[in-house]
Amino acid sequence: MCSTCGCSEGNVQIEGHSHDHHGHDHHHHEHDNHSRPVIIHHHHYHHNGDVNHYYYDGREAGEEHAHGYSHEHSHGHEHTHDHGHGHSHSHEHEHAHDHHHSHEHDHGHDHAAAFAPVIDKDNMHYGMGEAGTHAPGLTQKRMVQIEMGVLDKNNQIAVHNREHLQEQGILALNLVSSPGSGKTTLLTRTLNYLKDKVPCAVIEGDQQTTNDAERIRATGVPAIQVNTGKGCHLDAQMVHDAMHHLGLKDNSLLFIENVGNLVCPAGFDLGEQHKVAILSVTEGEDKPLKYPHMFAAADLMLINKIDLLPYVNVNIETCMNAARRVNPDIDVIVLSATTGEGMDEWVAWLQERLSKVNQQRGAAE
Amino acid sequence: MCSTCGCSEGNVQIEGHSHDHHGHDHHHHEHDNHSRPVIIHHHHYHHNGDVNHYYYDGREAGEEHAHGYSHEHSHGHEHTHDHGHGHSHSHEHEHAHDHHHSHEHDHGHDHAAAFAPVIDKDNMHYGMGEAGTHAPGLTQKRMVQIEMGVLDKNNQIAVHNREHLQEQGILALNLVSSPGSGKTTLLTRTLNYLKDKVPCAVIEGDQQTTNDAERIRATGVPAIQVNTGKGCHLDAQMVHDAMHHLGLKDNSLLFIENVGNLVCPAGFDLGEQHKVAILSVTEGEDKPLKYPHMFAAADLMLINKIDLLPYVNVNIETCMNAARRVNPDIDVIVLSATTGEGMDEWVAWLQERLSKVNQQRGAAE
Repeated sequence: MCSTCGCSEGNVQIEGHSHDHHGHDHHHHEHDNHSRPVIIHHHHYHHNGDVNHYYYDGREAGEEHAHGYSHEHSHGHEHTHDHGHGHSHSHEHEHAHDHHHSHEHDHGHDHAAAFAPVIDKDNMHYGMGEAGTHAPGLTQKRMVQIEMGVLDKNNQIAVHNREHLQEQGILALNLVSSPGSGKTTLLTRTLNYLKDKVPCAVIEGDQQTTNDAERIRATGVPAIQVNTGKGCHLDAQMVHDAMHHLGLKDNSLLFIENVGNLVCPAGFDLGEQHKVAILSVTEGEDKPLKYPHMFAAADLMLINKIDLLPYVNVNIETCMNAARRVNPDIDVIVLSATTGEGMDEWVAWLQERLSKVNQQRGAAE
Repeated sequence: MCSTCGCSEGNVQIEGHSHDHHGHDHHHHEHDNHSRPVIIHHHHYHHNGDVNHYYYDGREAGEEHAHGYSHEHSHGHEHTHDHGHGHSHSHEHEHAHDHHHSHEHDHGHDHAAAFAPVIDKDNMHYGMGEAGTHAPGLTQKRMVQIEMGVLDKNNQIAVHNREHLQEQGILALNLVSSPGSGKTTLLTRTLNYLKDKVPCAVIEGDQQTTNDAERIRATGVPAIQVNTGKGCHLDAQMVHDAMHHLGLKDNSLLFIENVGNLVCPAGFDLGEQHKVAILSVTEGEDKPLKYPHMFAAADLMLINKIDLLPYVNVNIETCMNAARRVNPDIDVIVLSATTGEGMDEWVAWLQERLSKVNQQRGAAE
């Protein structure tokens, strides 16, 4: 679960001040197309390929943009003395010794007020501060520091994964969705189309159970199950470990089925080439607007279970438009993994990306 | 998103050692009923009414329990000197000043090895460490510290919310589910049954958009929308603020519709009396096993959209049994918010709880 992320040691400092103004800029980009207000929420942290630019701020065209935090500014100075030395060794029976001697002085001078939501009539917006989110008792600045720490660690490993995949000419896709969108059924069907044409492998993420990996293995494709316990998403370390355990083949296709969650997996780069968001028609047409970060991060949206369209009150066109409002460049494919309708288009999308990856590998050699 | 939680200032210390062995006990409880292996995953943090005991560890009856971390032990000593003083004031234009002077010495001696997953054939279990989850570069001990910090802050506010609700005789329910389970439709239908019998109010949680609150207000019931931005769950602070903004009536009913997410909202007490988990039949019967923490935390599971049963391959009995494996005490009601089937049973469940809350208030006066 989401309280168990945390800050890296480099970020363990009492909220103080630093001169790095660049770390706290607010980027308010207003593009010429006024029908689509543009806010880039994430700043500060390194872009590693899939950190998303987030275009939609929930307001209708023509509405005024509320500058909930536009008058904040911070400046300060920081004195930190850190003396550390450490040594470690480990034994057969898994002990490690670490010695830390540290000595810190922090003189803080913090101009960032504790975060209060932007209240607009009967709506409270907690995502308008610089961190884009909220936790009780934490300032926005501290949350940004923590987010940077967690994402930096993750992204370092993701970069390593990506290099590894590129060297081997492997196309890796990160399948993200709500629970119950039909990811595993879609995947088994996809593997049955492709497994004789290209070597495939699967990393299955869940909180618990090994059911999904077993369903994949029944197709003859190697799969490893990664259980996250209380965790709400796969991280790059898990994918790294699973990749090594799988022993991936050159010029192959790796599917990573993330934990069913339309929120948290959006922020974690696993080293994949593309995030593919799967949405079942039973979930309703408004989900891209209500969970914009995921659809902004995805390169492709698959609208699944269209065999159920006659029985649910949902408009596919409205759903596509919602996705394009948060991500104008998103590809959309409409299909049913149960009946097979639309599967050809999805398989063609995959094969096109796969040959691109193989070509890039050829060019690099 | 989930990287933006963080540790409270009290937890900001470089990983060192302490003598508090009690903080790192592993509770392996084996009950007499061997068909249901018992592991209590959460320890360490304060129980505030809804912290769940988690019964199911993903293994079938009779399988051996893997002690992935049973040979770890840690001991150490800690020297910390903390000198801090602070003052703060704020101006009209939202500035705050904080001065921190701190001075820390940490002499660490850490015997806890960096966490490695428990590997069992082609399955990797990252939830088996003491933190129950994983983040790159963080030890399990650090994650437990962070989790304790975040949950403690949240739970203090939740206790306050709960007292507030009890004083006013208000029944508060936290509705949790995947995106698209039909929570808002269920809620509007429920309000139409109840709003003339008892004062109702709604707190609507989403990452973005005010659509859901507008749907609720159309029934004539007051609703406040709480947008979390990148956040993956409501927290007690948000609910506290929203409660005050709503101005709740005595002896009333408060519905809190959480962000659609079967993972993260499980761990956050909002002060509610009950978590109610809503599962659509389209999501499949195995979800309680794959997302056990949520179903362990809930007192009631509503199986919704049973009007779609003829069109999906799902067995209601199997789904109920899955929920009871992770939570033997969970109530289950099967219904369709669209057709109204089963709504009477749900409304009766609500009225029973409501009169209990009202009686408790009467007894306290």
